[in-house]
Amino acid sequence: MPDSSLSLALVQLPCSDDIEANMQNTMRRIREAAAKGAQIVILQELFAWPYFCREVDERFFDWAEAVPGPTTQRLEKLAGELEVVIVASLFEKRAAGLYHNTAVVIDADGSYLGKYRKMHIPEDPGFHEKYYFTPGDLGYSVFSTRYGRIGVLVCWDQWYPEAARITAMMGADILVYPTAIASLPEEEGELAERYRNAWQTIQKSHAIANGCYVASVNRTGTEGTLSFWGHSFVSGPFGEVLAEAGTDEAVVWCKADLQVLDRHRTTWPFFRDRRTDTYGPLASRWLDDDDT
Amino acid sequence: MPDSSLSLALVQLPCSDDIEANMQNTMRRIREAAAKGAQIVILQELFAWPYFCREVDERFFDWAEAVPGPTTQRLEKLAGELEVVIVASLFEKRAAGLYHNTAVVIDADGSYLGKYRKMHIPEDPGFHEKYYFTPGDLGYSVFSTRYGRIGVLVCWDQWYPEAARITAMMGADILVYPTAIASLPEEEGELAERYRNAWQTIQKSHAIANGCYVASVNRTGTEGTLSFWGHSFVSGPFGEVLAEAGTDEAVVWCKADLQVLDRHRTTWPFFRDRRTDTYGPLASRWLDDDDT
Repeated sequence: MPDSSLSLALVQLPCSDDIEANMQNTMRRIREAAAKGAQIVILQELFAWPYFCREVDERFFDWAEAVPGPTTQRLEKLAGELEVVIVASLFEKRAAGLYHNTAVVIDADGSYLGKYRKMHIPEDPGFHEKYYFTPGDLGYSVFSTRYGRIGVLVCWDQWYPEAARITAMMGADILVYPTAIASLPEEEGELAERYRNAWQTIQKSHAIANGCYVASVNRTGTEGTLSFWGHSFVSGPFGEVLAEAGTDEAVVWCKADLQVLDRHRTTWPFFRDRRTDTYGPLASRWLDDDDT
Repeated sequence: MPDSSLSLALVQLPCSDDIEANMQNTMRRIREAAAKGAQIVILQELFAWPYFCREVDERFFDWAEAVPGPTTQRLEKLAGELEVVIVASLFEKRAAGLYHNTAVVIDADGSYLGKYRKMHIPEDPGFHEKYYFTPGDLGYSVFSTRYGRIGVLVCWDQWYPEAARITAMMGADILVYPTAIASLPEEEGELAERYRNAWQTIQKSHAIANGCYVASVNRTGTEGTLSFWGHSFVSGPFGEVLAEAGTDEAVVWCKADLQVLDRHRTTWPFFRDRRTDTYGPLASRWLDDDDT
């Protein structure tokens, strides 16, 4: 039987305050991954930027750019030259005073396939994303690339089974999550491990519930008080971890056989039995109060 | 600080073809659990019945009964005497030719609080439930007991994040899953372990996504070609396993502190950020086809 597996490469890097240096470092890693046979390269959230959302400061808005725009042009050129699919997360300036946390997919012929704007925006100590990003208004998105149908979600989206489900029902074989998740100083030790385990568990559950692959790419390194914990990983449709990084800079390699998903879902037929007639309440905010 | 923890007891048993013997064995276990301080006792799916759904045979319909009915009356008496909450799963006869897989909750004063009819019904080799059970039509349910708000779901429901989410939004602090899940002979070894890990992972994910406890009670023992794998467990809101059985007959003990959930959800605010405006497609069967 011919090998129908795809080669995924997840690029997990630290970022400095020098955006161009981060960009160059990432592009070098993409070249190296392609040279080793990667077909789909997935970058971390806001891959070329330091995680500026740890502070509330208007000067960081100057770092946003049009999408598509200068960065996607560079990535298109690279993707076409190397014949790799690239998933990249960018800081989008849409209009004066209107910014998004946006991911793009570029096909292996260098063509820009489209963008996804992060739907669920966090706002927590060290993660002031609601200050910077307007929640996405493009809906959920699946992109048909040369190598497979990729559903793109971003970081905080990963805690929402709703987002994974809708994206899977749109035809995704792989859900990818560019991510920037870190421990705060008060969360070291056992608590940090609890958060990290929960982070992996919830994403594995999306692979199980939807009979697909999940690839999650986190950044690494320390920025201010945030310790990005890396541990980028790929889960198969049983929720089994197929490949995983540690906390250091790394490229995670994984083979993913999209051909197995058809039979997997047929013999484990969760989609057959969804009670779509009963899911209307999911569009509610909460159900046990009398909110009058 | 006073101990605000609840004591849960999950009763994991094998079943013979003798329903009255299974009933007596279960009631003895409930008495023992109560004597040791259990406040909420959770029984496995179809707790007094052999797992007849492994065969397609009309004679098994004779085993169904009204709910509430003779079995709930016995459990009400026991619950009131012992001052324990009991969650029990029964084979309900609703009318001629109309049967459900139904769970009931009985409060610690012996009062019958109501029932939940299993919404997602499987039909797979060894699990012919669609032959026996009409899918539930009561919606999702949360029961306010003396010791806490319990959301009840049953077995195959556990693979559906939608069911867990709606039940949590109705105010459940604990999601309970009476279960009958087994390995088939061809699934021994690594494959059996993959299924069991997936089974635990998806349920842990419901605890994480919804900031609640999850208690899942599986049966054990061999019935025909089915090897019920036990491994009843309780997960906390980080998806951490607080208590777990092996494959043998067992009572799983667990302390669950419902007071911690308020602060847990406040500092990990998934409910704050749900994009309810974008979840309409969850009520669809599938999204990438042009079904005309």
